[in-house]
Amino acid sequence: MKIAIFGGTGDLGRGLAINFAAAGHEVIVGSRSQERADQAAETLREALPSGTFTPLDNVAAAAAGDLAVLSIPWEGIEATIPPMADALAGKVVVSVVNALRFGKSGAIAEQDALPFASCGHQIQELAPEAKVVVAYNNLPAAGLQAQHHLDADVLVCGKSREAREAVIALTDAIPGTRALDAGPLANALIIEGMTAIIINLNKRYGGEASLSVSGLENAPARPA
Amino acid sequence: MKIAIFGGTGDLGRGLAINFAAAGHEVIVGSRSQERADQAAETLREALPSGTFTPLDNVAAAAAGDLAVLSIPWEGIEATIPPMADALAGKVVVSVVNALRFGKSGAIAEQDALPFASCGHQIQELAPEAKVVVAYNNLPAAGLQAQHHLDADVLVCGKSREAREAVIALTDAIPGTRALDAGPLANALIIEGMTAIIINLNKRYGGEASLSVSGLENAPARPA
Repeated sequence: MKIAIFGGTGDLGRGLAINFAAAGHEVIVGSRSQERADQAAETLREALPSGTFTPLDNVAAAAAGDLAVLSIPWEGIEATIPPMADALAGKVVVSVVNALRFGKSGAIAEQDALPFASCGHQIQELAPEAKVVVAYNNLPAAGLQAQHHLDADVLVCGKSREAREAVIALTDAIPGTRALDAGPLANALIIEGMTAIIINLNKRYGGEASLSVSGLENAPARPA
Repeated sequence: MKIAIFGGTGDLGRGLAINFAAAGHEVIVGSRSQERADQAAETLREALPSGTFTPLDNVAAAAAGDLAVLSIPWEGIEATIPPMADALAGKVVVSVVNALRFGKSGAIAEQDALPFASCGHQIQELAPEAKVVVAYNNLPAAGLQAQHHLDADVLVCGKSREAREAVIALTDAIPGTRALDAGPLANALIIEGMTAIIINLNKRYGGEASLSVSGLENAPARPA
Protein backbone atom coordinates (compact mmCIF):
# COMPACT_ATOMS: atom_id res chain seq x y z
CA MET A 1 0.00 0.00 0.00
CA LYS A 2 1.12 3.59 -0.59
CA ILE A 3 0.93 5.35 2.75
CA ALA A 4 1.34 9.13 2.79
CA ILE A 5 2.74 10.34 6.12
CA PHE A 6 2.59 14.00 7.15
CA GLY A 7 4.78 14.89 10.11
CA GLY A 8 7.11 11.96 9.52
CA THR A 9 9.94 13.67 11.38
CA GLY A 10 8.11 13.83 14.72
CA ASP A 11 8.69 10.97 17.17
CA LEU A 12 5.50 9.10 16.48
CA GLY A 13 5.26 9.86 12.74
CA ARG A 14 8.84 8.73 12.25
CA GLY A 15 8.18 5.51 14.19
CA LEU A 16 5.09 4.76 12.10
CA ALA A 17 6.93 5.53 8.83
CA ILE A 18 9.76 3.14 9.75
CA ASN A 19 7.40 0.31 10.73
CA PHE A 20 5.14 0.68 7.69
CA ALA A 21 8.15 0.73 5.36
CA ALA A 22 9.71 -2.25 7.15
CA ALA A 23 6.48 -4.18 6.52
CA GLY A 24 6.82 -3.49 2.78
CA HIS A 25 4.56 -0.50 2.31
CA GLU A 26 5.73 2.39 0.16
CA VAL A 27 5.86 5.45 2.41
CA ILE A 28 5.18 8.80 0.76
CA VAL A 29 6.80 11.48 2.90
CA GLY A 30 4.75 14.66 2.71
CA SER A 31 6.03 18.03 3.79
CA ARG A 32 5.42 21.76 3.25
CA SER A 33 7.95 21.88 0.41
CA GLN A 34 9.69 19.37 -1.84
CA GLU A 35 13.01 20.33 -0.24
CA ARG A 36 11.81 19.61 3.30
CA ALA A 37 10.23 16.37 2.11
CA ASP A 38 13.57 15.35 0.51
CA GLN A 39 15.34 15.94 3.82
CA ALA A 40 12.74 14.02 5.81
CA ALA A 41 12.87 11.05 3.42
CA GLU A 42 16.67 11.03 3.61
CA THR A 43 16.54 10.87 7.43
CA LEU A 44 14.11 7.98 7.24
CA ARG A 45 16.32 6.14 4.72
CA GLU A 46 19.22 6.45 7.16
CA ALA A 47 17.07 4.77 9.83
CA LEU A 48 15.83 2.04 7.47
CA PRO A 49 17.96 1.71 4.31
CA SER A 50 15.73 -1.09 3.00
CA GLY A 51 12.61 1.09 3.11
CA THR A 52 10.99 2.91 0.22
CA PHE A 53 10.47 6.57 1.15
CA THR A 54 9.20 8.88 -1.59
CA PRO A 55 9.33 12.61 -0.82
CA LEU A 56 6.59 14.91 -2.13
CA ASP A 57 5.06 18.21 -1.13
CA ASN A 58 1.86 17.91 0.94
CA VAL A 59 -0.71 18.15 -1.84
CA ALA A 60 1.16 15.77 -4.15
CA ALA A 61 1.69 13.35 -1.26
CA ALA A 62 -2.03 13.42 -0.38
CA ALA A 63 -2.83 12.62 -4.01
CA ALA A 64 -0.25 9.83 -4.24
CA GLY A 65 -1.20 7.97 -1.04
CA ASP A 66 -3.84 5.23 -0.90
CA LEU A 67 -4.15 6.13 2.79
CA ALA A 68 -2.83 9.10 4.78
CA VAL A 69 -1.38 9.37 8.28
CA LEU A 70 -1.36 12.80 9.93
CA SER A 71 1.17 13.23 12.70
CA ILE A 72 1.45 17.01 12.63
CA PRO A 73 1.29 19.46 15.58
CA TRP A 74 -2.33 20.31 16.33
CA GLU A 75 -1.70 24.02 15.82
CA GLY A 76 -0.92 23.15 12.19
CA ILE A 77 -4.23 21.46 11.37
CA GLU A 78 -6.00 24.62 10.21
CA ALA A 79 -3.30 25.60 7.70
CA THR A 80 -2.25 22.12 6.56
CA ILE A 81 -5.53 20.33 5.86
CA PRO A 82 -7.60 22.58 3.55
CA PRO A 83 -5.13 22.53 0.61
CA MET A 84 -5.07 18.70 0.76
CA ALA A 85 -8.80 18.19 1.36
CA ASP A 86 -9.70 17.38 -2.26
CA ALA A 87 -6.83 14.91 -2.61
CA LEU A 88 -7.90 13.16 0.63
CA ALA A 89 -11.55 12.78 -0.44
CA GLY A 90 -12.73 9.18 -0.14
CA LYS A 91 -9.49 8.04 1.51
CA VAL A 92 -8.82 6.72 4.99
CA VAL A 93 -7.02 9.45 6.94
CA VAL A 94 -5.47 8.35 10.22
CA SER A 95 -5.01 11.16 12.74
CA VAL A 96 -2.30 10.68 15.35
CA VAL A 97 -2.65 14.35 16.34
CA ASN A 98 -2.98 15.30 20.02
CA ALA A 99 -3.67 18.68 21.59
CA LEU A 100 -1.58 18.77 24.73
CA ARG A 101 -0.34 21.52 26.96
CA PHE A 102 2.17 21.29 29.75
CA GLY A 103 1.46 22.68 33.21
CA LYS A 104 3.47 22.59 36.42
CA SER A 105 1.68 19.39 37.42
CA GLY A 106 2.19 17.57 34.12
CA ALA A 107 0.83 17.08 30.64
CA ILE A 108 -2.78 18.13 30.16
CA ALA A 109 -5.18 17.13 27.39
CA GLU A 110 -6.42 20.40 25.95
CA GLN A 111 -10.20 20.76 25.98
CA ASP A 112 -11.16 24.44 26.02
CA ALA A 113 -8.87 25.71 23.25
CA LEU A 114 -10.05 23.16 20.67
CA PRO A 115 -12.27 24.60 17.94
CA PHE A 116 -14.02 21.22 17.65
CA ALA A 117 -14.52 18.27 20.01
CA SER A 118 -11.09 16.82 19.21
CA CYS A 119 -8.26 17.09 16.70
CA GLY A 120 -9.86 14.23 14.79
CA HIS A 121 -13.12 16.17 14.57
CA GLN A 122 -11.30 19.26 13.31
CA ILE A 123 -9.58 17.26 10.56
CA GLN A 124 -12.90 15.63 9.60
CA GLU A 125 -14.47 19.09 9.42
CA LEU A 126 -11.72 20.45 7.15
CA ALA A 127 -11.60 17.35 4.95
CA PRO A 128 -15.29 16.39 4.98
CA GLU A 129 -15.01 13.66 2.32
CA ALA A 130 -12.11 11.92 4.04
CA LYS A 131 -12.72 8.90 6.27
CA VAL A 132 -11.02 10.12 9.43
CA VAL A 133 -9.85 7.53 11.96
CA VAL A 134 -8.08 8.35 15.22
CA ALA A 135 -5.43 5.76 16.17
CA TYR A 136 -1.79 5.18 17.18
CA ASN A 137 -1.75 8.22 19.52
CA ASN A 138 -0.86 6.10 22.53
CA LEU A 139 1.93 3.97 21.11
CA PRO A 140 5.35 4.25 22.79
CA ALA A 141 7.30 6.38 20.30
CA ALA A 142 10.83 5.34 21.24
CA GLY A 143 10.01 1.63 21.12
CA LEU A 144 8.18 2.17 17.84
CA GLN A 145 11.18 3.91 16.24
CA ALA A 146 13.45 1.10 17.43
CA GLN A 147 11.03 -1.44 15.86
CA HIS A 148 10.59 -3.18 19.19
CA HIS A 149 7.91 -5.78 19.76
CA LEU A 150 5.56 -3.37 21.53
CA ASP A 151 3.06 -5.50 23.44
CA ALA A 152 0.43 -2.77 23.04
CA ASP A 153 -3.17 -2.43 21.95
CA VAL A 154 -4.20 0.31 19.55
CA LEU A 155 -7.59 1.93 20.14
CA VAL A 156 -9.21 2.89 16.83
CA CYS A 157 -12.19 5.21 16.49
CA GLY A 158 -13.86 6.86 13.52
CA LYS A 159 -17.18 7.39 11.82
CA SER A 160 -16.76 4.73 9.12
CA ARG A 161 -16.55 1.12 10.27
CA GLU A 162 -14.94 0.18 6.96
CA ALA A 163 -12.22 2.78 7.59
CA ARG A 164 -11.69 1.50 11.14
CA GLU A 165 -11.31 -2.02 9.75
CA ALA A 166 -8.75 -0.78 7.21
CA VAL A 167 -6.67 0.73 10.02
CA ILE A 168 -7.02 -2.43 12.10
CA ALA A 169 -5.63 -4.42 9.15
CA LEU A 170 -2.83 -1.89 8.60
CA THR A 171 -1.76 -2.29 12.23
CA ASP A 172 -0.46 -5.80 11.43
CA ALA A 173 2.60 -3.89 10.17
CA ILE A 174 3.54 -2.87 13.72
CA PRO A 175 5.16 -5.76 15.63
CA GLY A 176 3.51 -6.77 18.91
CA THR A 177 0.41 -4.64 18.50
CA ARG A 178 -3.25 -5.43 18.12
CA ALA A 179 -5.80 -2.86 17.01
CA LEU A 180 -9.27 -2.81 18.54
CA ASP A 181 -12.41 -1.18 17.16
CA ALA A 182 -13.31 1.40 19.82
CA GLY A 183 -16.32 2.78 17.99
CA PRO A 184 -17.42 6.24 16.86
CA LEU A 185 -15.28 9.33 16.27
CA ALA A 186 -17.25 10.96 19.12
CA ASN A 187 -14.73 9.52 21.60
CA ALA A 188 -11.66 10.80 19.71
CA LEU A 189 -10.72 13.24 22.48
CA ILE A 190 -10.49 10.38 24.96
CA ILE A 191 -7.98 8.47 22.81
CA GLU A 192 -6.06 11.64 21.96
CA GLY A 193 -6.01 12.77 25.60
CA MET A 194 -4.83 9.42 26.92
CA THR A 195 -1.45 10.51 25.57
CA ALA A 196 -1.28 13.18 28.31
CA ILE A 197 -1.86 10.51 30.92
CA ILE A 198 0.80 8.27 29.41
CA ILE A 199 3.30 11.15 29.45
CA ASN A 200 2.52 11.71 33.14
CA LEU A 201 2.93 8.01 33.92
CA ASN A 202 6.28 7.94 32.08
CA LYS A 203 7.46 10.96 34.05
CA ARG A 204 6.27 9.56 37.38
CA TYR A 205 7.51 5.99 36.99
CA GLY A 206 10.13 6.07 34.23
CA GLY A 207 10.17 3.90 31.13
CA GLU A 208 7.67 4.14 28.31
CA ALA A 209 4.10 3.04 28.98
CA SER A 210 2.00 0.93 26.62
CA LEU A 211 -1.75 0.44 27.02
CA SER A 212 -3.38 -2.93 26.70
CA VAL A 213 -6.83 -4.38 27.12
CA SER A 214 -7.67 -7.81 28.51
CA GLY A 215 -10.96 -9.63 29.06
CA LEU A 216 -12.45 -9.35 25.54
CA GLU A 217 -13.82 -12.72 24.48
CA ASN A 218 -13.90 -12.45 20.71
CA ALA A 219 -11.07 -10.04 20.01
CA PRO A 220 -8.12 -11.28 17.96
CA ALA A 221 -5.10 -12.22 20.07
CA ARG A 222 -2.22 -9.80 20.34
CA PRO A 223 0.78 -11.23 18.44
CA ALA A 224 3.08 -12.98 20.94
CA MET B 1 -10.93 2.70 57.48
CA LYS B 2 -14.51 3.99 57.38
CA ILE B 3 -15.41 4.40 53.72
CA ALA B 4 -18.64 6.22 52.87
CA ILE B 5 -20.07 5.07 49.55
CA PHE B 6 -22.75 7.03 47.71
CA GLY B 7 -24.44 5.15 44.89
CA GLY B 8 -23.60 1.76 46.38
CA THR B 9 -26.45 0.07 44.52
CA GLY B 10 -25.09 0.88 41.04
CA ASP B 11 -22.92 -1.76 39.38
CA LEU B 12 -19.58 -0.16 40.11
CA GLY B 13 -20.47 1.29 43.53
CA ARG B 14 -21.79 -2.07 44.66
CA GLY B 15 -18.62 -3.80 43.43
CA LEU B 16 -16.40 -1.32 45.27
CA ALA B 17 -18.48 -1.61 48.47
CA ILE B 18 -18.19 -5.41 48.43
CA ASN B 19 -14.43 -5.39 47.85
CA PHE B 20 -13.70 -2.70 50.45
CA ALA B 21 -15.81 -4.54 53.04
CA ALA B 22 -14.18 -7.87 52.15
CA ALA B 23 -10.80 -6.28 52.83
CA GLY B 24 -11.95 -5.31 56.33
CA HIS B 25 -13.01 -1.70 55.85
CA GLU B 26 -16.25 -0.50 57.44
CA VAL B 27 -18.50 0.64 54.59
CA ILE B 28 -20.91 3.46 55.36
CA VAL B 29 -23.77 3.22 52.87
CA GLY B 30 -25.07 6.71 52.11
CA SER B 31 -28.41 7.38 50.46
CA ARG B 32 -31.02 10.10 50.08
CA SER B 33 -32.96 8.80 53.10
CA GLN B 34 -32.27 6.49 56.04
CA GLU B 35 -34.87 4.06 54.64
CA ARG B 36 -33.17 3.80 51.23
CA ALA B 37 -29.79 3.46 52.92
CA ASP B 38 -31.17 0.61 55.08
CA GLN B 39 -32.34 -1.20 51.94
CA ALA B 40 -29.02 -0.68 50.14
CA ALA B 41 -27.04 -1.94 53.14
CA GLU B 42 -29.29 -5.01 53.41
CA THR B 43 -28.67 -5.84 49.72
CA LEU B 44 -24.91 -5.52 50.27
CA ARG B 45 -25.08 -7.76 53.36
CA GLU B 46 -26.80 -10.42 51.26
CA ALA B 47 -23.88 -10.27 48.81
CA LEU B 48 -21.24 -10.31 51.56
CA PRO B 49 -22.62 -11.49 54.95
CA SER B 50 -19.20 -11.04 56.59
CA GLY B 51 -19.04 -7.34 55.64
CA THR B 52 -19.83 -4.38 57.86
CA PHE B 53 -22.29 -2.08 56.06
CA THR B 54 -23.65 0.85 58.06
CA PRO B 55 -26.59 2.70 56.49
CA LEU B 56 -26.91 6.46 56.95
CA ASP B 57 -28.50 9.35 55.08
CA ASN B 58 -26.09 11.23 52.78
CA VAL B 59 -25.05 14.02 55.13
CA ALA B 60 -24.56 11.71 58.11
CA ALA B 61 -22.63 9.26 55.89
CA ALA B 62 -20.36 12.02 54.61
CA ALA B 63 -19.65 13.04 58.21
CA ALA B 64 -19.02 9.45 59.34
CA GLY B 65 -16.62 8.42 56.56
CA ASP B 66 -12.87 8.92 56.74
CA LEU B 67 -12.97 8.86 52.93
CA ALA B 68 -15.89 9.05 50.49
CA VAL B 69 -16.58 7.27 47.20
CA LEU B 70 -19.11 8.85 44.83
CA SER B 71 -20.68 6.46 42.34
CA ILE B 72 -23.83 8.42 41.60
CA PRO B 73 -25.32 9.27 38.19
CA TRP B 74 -23.74 12.46 36.85
CA GLU B 75 -27.11 14.19 36.60
CA GLY B 76 -27.30 13.89 40.39
CA ILE B 77 -24.07 15.74 41.19
CA GLU B 78 -25.62 19.18 41.40
CA ALA B 79 -28.31 18.17 43.91
CA THR B 80 -26.32 15.63 45.91
CA ILE B 81 -23.00 17.34 46.64
CA PRO B 82 -23.79 20.80 48.12
CA PRO B 83 -25.56 19.47 51.26
CA MET B 84 -22.56 17.20 51.98
CA ALA B 85 -19.84 19.72 51.10
CA ASP B 86 -19.07 20.78 54.67
CA ALA B 87 -18.88 17.19 55.89
CA LEU B 88 -16.50 16.31 53.05
CA ALA B 89 -14.11 19.21 53.73
CA GLY B 90 -10.53 18.03 54.12
CA LYS B 91 -11.40 14.44 53.14
CA VAL B 92 -10.37 12.39 50.14
CA VAL B 93 -13.40 12.09 47.84
CA VAL B 94 -13.10 9.50 45.08
CA SER B 95 -15.30 10.16 42.07
CA VAL B 96 -16.27 7.16 39.96
CA VAL B 97 -18.83 9.30 38.13
CA ASN B 98 -18.99 9.28 34.32
CA ALA B 99 -21.06 11.39 31.98
CA LEU B 100 -22.03 9.10 29.14
CA ARG B 101 -24.70 9.17 26.49
CA PHE B 102 -25.71 6.43 24.14
CA GLY B 103 -26.00 7.01 20.40
CA LYS B 104 -26.78 4.67 17.54
CA SER B 105 -23.08 4.01 17.09
CA GLY B 106 -22.31 3.33 20.74
CA ALA B 107 -21.48 4.91 24.08
CA ILE B 108 -20.19 8.47 23.90
CA ALA B 109 -18.26 10.40 26.52
CA GLU B 110 -20.28 13.57 27.06
CA GLN B 111 -18.29 16.77 26.51
CA ASP B 112 -20.63 19.60 25.54
CA ALA B 113 -23.30 19.13 28.20
CA LEU B 114 -20.88 19.18 31.13
CA PRO B 115 -20.98 22.39 33.20
CA PHE B 116 -17.28 21.92 34.03
CA ALA B 117 -14.38 20.10 32.36
CA SER B 118 -15.40 16.74 33.85
CA CYS B 119 -17.60 15.22 36.55
CA GLY B 120 -14.58 15.29 38.85
CA HIS B 121 -14.17 19.02 38.25
CA GLN B 122 -17.84 19.62 38.99
CA ILE B 123 -17.61 17.75 42.30
CA GLN B 124 -14.45 19.66 43.21
CA GLU B 125 -16.25 22.91 42.43
CA LEU B 126 -19.24 22.01 44.64
CA ALA B 127 -17.10 20.65 47.48
CA PRO B 128 -14.12 23.00 47.24
CA GLU B 129 -12.43 21.83 50.45
CA ALA B 130 -12.61 18.15 49.52
CA LYS B 131 -9.61 16.42 47.97
CA VAL B 132 -11.23 15.06 44.83
CA VAL B 133 -9.61 12.10 43.10
CA VAL B 134 -10.94 10.43 39.95
CA ALA B 135 -10.39 6.65 39.92
CA TYR B 136 -12.01 3.22 39.47
CA ASN B 137 -14.17 4.40 36.53
CA ASN B 138 -12.70 1.79 34.20
CA LEU B 139 -12.86 -1.31 36.37
CA PRO B 140 -14.95 -4.23 35.07
CA ALA B 141 -18.09 -3.98 37.22
CA ALA B 142 -19.31 -7.58 36.94
CA GLY B 143 -15.89 -9.02 37.78
CA LEU B 144 -15.57 -6.53 40.64
CA GLN B 145 -18.94 -7.53 42.13
CA ALA B 146 -17.96 -11.20 41.88
CA GLN B 147 -14.67 -10.40 43.69
CA HIS B 148 -12.66 -11.79 40.81
CA HIS B 149 -8.93 -11.28 40.53
CA LEU B 150 -9.21 -8.45 37.99
CA ASP B 151 -5.80 -8.12 36.33
CA ALA B 152 -6.41 -4.40 35.83
CA ASP B 153 -4.63 -1.11 36.40
CA VAL B 154 -6.44 1.81 38.00
CA LEU B 155 -5.61 5.28 36.68
CA VAL B 156 -5.77 7.84 39.49
CA CYS B 157 -5.85 11.61 38.96
CA GLY B 158 -6.49 14.53 41.28
CA LYS B 159 -5.09 17.84 42.42
CA SER B 160 -3.55 16.60 45.69
CA ARG B 161 -0.69 14.11 45.40
CA GLU B 162 -1.29 13.06 49.00
CA ALA B 163 -4.91 12.24 48.12
CA ARG B 164 -3.82 10.29 45.03
CA GLU B 165 -1.41 8.30 47.20
CA ALA B 166 -4.23 7.55 49.67
CA VAL B 167 -6.36 6.14 46.85
CA ILE B 168 -3.42 4.15 45.50
CA ALA B 169 -3.01 2.58 48.97
CA LEU B 170 -6.77 1.92 49.25
CA THR B 171 -6.68 0.04 45.93
CA ASP B 172 -4.79 -2.81 47.64
CA ALA B 173 -8.28 -3.85 48.79
CA ILE B 174 -9.26 -4.81 45.22
CA PRO B 175 -7.74 -8.16 44.18
CA GLY B 176 -5.58 -8.18 41.06
CA THR B 177 -5.43 -4.43 40.64
CA ARG B 178 -2.63 -1.90 40.77
CA ALA B 179 -3.25 1.83 40.98
CA LEU B 180 -1.04 4.28 39.09
CA ASP B 181 -0.59 7.99 39.71
CA ALA B 182 -1.80 9.57 36.46
CA GLY B 183 -1.28 13.16 37.59
CA PRO B 184 -3.48 16.24 37.78
CA LEU B 185 -7.27 16.45 37.90
CA ALA B 186 -7.05 18.29 34.56
CA ASN B 187 -7.15 14.93 32.76
CA ALA B 188 -10.22 13.65 34.64
CA LEU B 189 -12.40 13.68 31.52
CA ILE B 190 -10.00 11.30 29.80
CA ILE B 191 -10.24 8.71 32.59
CA GLU B 192 -14.00 9.19 32.91
CA GLY B 193 -14.51 8.99 29.14
CA MET B 194 -12.43 5.84 28.75
CA THR B 195 -15.49 4.09 30.20
CA ALA B 196 -17.39 4.87 26.98
CA ILE B 197 -14.63 3.22 24.97
CA ILE B 198 -14.63 0.19 27.24
CA ILE B 199 -18.42 -0.15 26.83
CA ASN B 200 -17.97 -0.04 23.04
CA LEU B 201 -15.20 -2.66 23.16
CA ASN B 202 -17.38 -4.92 25.34
CA LYS B 203 -20.26 -4.57 22.89
CA ARG B 204 -18.06 -5.19 19.86
CA TYR B 205 -16.02 -8.13 21.15
CA GLY B 206 -17.98 -9.53 24.11
CA GLY B 207 -16.64 -10.09 27.59
CA GLU B 208 -15.63 -7.35 30.00
CA ALA B 209 -12.54 -5.32 29.19
CA SER B 210 -9.88 -4.32 31.71
CA LEU B 211 -7.19 -1.73 31.01
CA SER B 212 -3.59 -2.28 31.89
CA VAL B 213 -0.31 -0.48 31.42
CA SER B 214 3.07 -2.07 30.74
CA GLY B 215 6.54 -0.64 30.26
CA LEU B 216 6.83 1.48 33.42
CA GLU B 217 10.20 0.87 35.04
CA ASN B 218 9.61 1.94 38.63
CA ALA B 219 5.91 1.24 39.09
CA PRO B 220 4.89 -1.35 41.68
CA ALA B 221 4.06 -4.75 40.20
CA ARG B 222 0.42 -5.69 39.71
CA PRO B 223 -0.47 -8.46 42.21
CA ALA B 224 -0.20 -11.85 40.47
